[in-house]
Amino acid sequence: MTLRDEISEQPTVIARLLASARPAVEAIAAEVGPRIATGEIDLVVVAARGSSDHAAIYAQYLVGERLGLPIALAAPSLLSIYGAEPRMGRALVVAISQSGRSPDVVGVVESARRQGAPTVAITNDPASELAGAAAHVVDLAAGPERSVAATKTYTGQLVAVAMLVEALAGRDGADADLAGLPDAIAAASDESERAVGPVAARLASHDRLIVIGRGFEYATVRELALKLKELARVSADPYSTADFLHGPLALVEPGLPVLAIAPSGRAAADVDAVLERLAGLGVERIVISDRAEALAAATAGISLPAGLPDRLMPIVSIVPGQLLALHVALVRGIDPEAPRWIEKVTLTR
Amino acid sequence: MTLRDEISEQPTVIARLLASARPAVEAIAAEVGPRIATGEIDLVVVAARGSSDHAAIYAQYLVGERLGLPIALAAPSLLSIYGAEPRMGRALVVAISQSGRSPDVVGVVESARRQGAPTVAITNDPASELAGAAAHVVDLAAGPERSVAATKTYTGQLVAVAMLVEALAGRDGADADLAGLPDAIAAASDESERAVGPVAARLASHDRLIVIGRGFEYATVRELALKLKELARVSADPYSTADFLHGPLALVEPGLPVLAIAPSGRAAADVDAVLERLAGLGVERIVISDRAEALAAATAGISLPAGLPDRLMPIVSIVPGQLLALHVALVRGIDPEAPRWIEKVTLTR
Repeated sequence: MTLRDEISEQPTVIARLLASARPAVEAIAAEVGPRIATGEIDLVVVAARGSSDHAAIYAQYLVGERLGLPIALAAPSLLSIYGAEPRMGRALVVAISQSGRSPDVVGVVESARRQGAPTVAITNDPASELAGAAAHVVDLAAGPERSVAATKTYTGQLVAVAMLVEALAGRDGADADLAGLPDAIAAASDESERAVGPVAARLASHDRLIVIGRGFEYATVRELALKLKELARVSADPYSTADFLHGPLALVEPGLPVLAIAPSGRAAADVDAVLERLAGLGVERIVISDRAEALAAATAGISLPAGLPDRLMPIVSIVPGQLLALHVALVRGIDPEAPRWIEKVTLTR
Repeated sequence: MTLRDEISEQPTVIARLLASARPAVEAIAAEVGPRIATGEIDLVVVAARGSSDHAAIYAQYLVGERLGLPIALAAPSLLSIYGAEPRMGRALVVAISQSGRSPDVVGVVESARRQGAPTVAITNDPASELAGAAAHVVDLAAGPERSVAATKTYTGQLVAVAMLVEALAGRDGADADLAGLPDAIAAASDESERAVGPVAARLASHDRLIVIGRGFEYATVRELALKLKELARVSADPYSTADFLHGPLALVEPGLPVLAIAPSGRAAADVDAVLERLAGLGVERIVISDRAEALAAATAGISLPAGLPDRLMPIVSIVPGQLLALHVALVRGIDPEAPRWIEKVTLTR
């Protein structure tokens, strides 16, 4: 099972997850949904590390938009380094970890249970310490992920978050949107296999680049930058387009490519405005989008399937990025199966 | 008034702020402190952008450690792009903005007031729209900051956050710790003026580097990376040491320097462990610390004054970083007064 296999497997993994996670998600919604409605629960706390932290960022936007609740991304160090246990008695606490073995993430869940908060573990190992610590477990059932770089478990985590939030929101029609994901991922994958080769060749000579996007896609921006770092050893610097204008824009110059995640939706106009400004500065712009006009205005483009609501697009828009990072690694002569120095499971306290 | 002047001014600015902000901070503590004690307020929401976002990260750790409350970093896009107004009725809402003019940050405060939440603006312009929108204003009174890169307003924001949190925590002795800050900043500044020249010369040939630290110093890590980007056009990549081990470690190789913020305190052992691992990989390690042994183990070091509690050290430990970014810019032949493409005030929606 290679990294490429794990990327290719995603439509199957997601289709399976949409069915298998349903009972767990419905049990959580039945317990927690009414307590959100009464205001007894008025906060979501998410604990995660690494790629899972990007799933937490996705949750931040989705929970804000769909549930109207604030979301605190737990700083696990607070507990593990400073011994502080923030009040979580009125929170739904969600821990996200592929392996379920990060002691600091487990610590947040244990603290939450001591305080009587409902807890959910989203993990690929239902026998893990994290799963044991949480009251509810959403098993990603993605099969073993042998590559050090997370791919199918990342998209799985996003789907689990989306299923959970939509179930808590109780929205009609959400299931139909979710059901379209496996085909959309397959379409993005097929299209990317055709398109990423020339883009990877173009990027391979660069040791650094910038990745931008906004709103729901900020998670994709962060995750794509991490894939480029761990697989292809490219210093990829991720920004929300809003933060990008507060300083980092000064970095930009011809020779420093910018990769934009720019699908249709409510954030598109903002990303387009930044891309237009970058075009004026003579900067190379690689755009991942389902919009023909955004692709046409780019130096190079990778197209996404159309028709998904913007809140679900991050589950699809990362797939071209995964393949791009893989191909940039190959062009650079780096073995993507064996990133240097790191192990699959990192036990941070 | 040059950037260097604004950096040098910090002991004066902070000494003034410690006195001038006292009445506002006490008024907030008198109103909000009892409501935290009863549990009526059980969350802090912070809204910020750019350097101010790093002050928000500092607040995240300080609020967690001192008040035991979770903190949600508001994603201003949720409101401005998606029209979502997360529930903030049980939150203390703190907005941090040098100019007080970012419309998306103002929007979060307006939404909080509509919901009846206590609101605080930490800003350098008490006549700004943000100050007008908030119920309470902590005026940084730092004088005009003409340089595009924030320096004295950043340390001022950290001091305002520390004063506010300590007042809410009602801890005896906090004032004595705070009172030591102006001298500590002056000492760090004097020492850095001597030490940064050779370090800047060593770093100037690198287009990219990595900045690491943990816990309270994660804010410093992020802010130093931003200064290196906007002033010296170096792609500086910031990480908590815990996240760094989850993937980005693969980037590391001789020729990619690592800058570590490693003062004494509860996070020191973790940072030291990563530095030791990097030493084994033959990587250049620039260390900013008050600990002789950490400085001795580094390729190059910049020393910090000793004796501050770790929770206040970020107000001092950024100062060598500000001077380092300034000097790297000068060695690279870049005018630090005029970063390319960006303006002092960025009006993101």
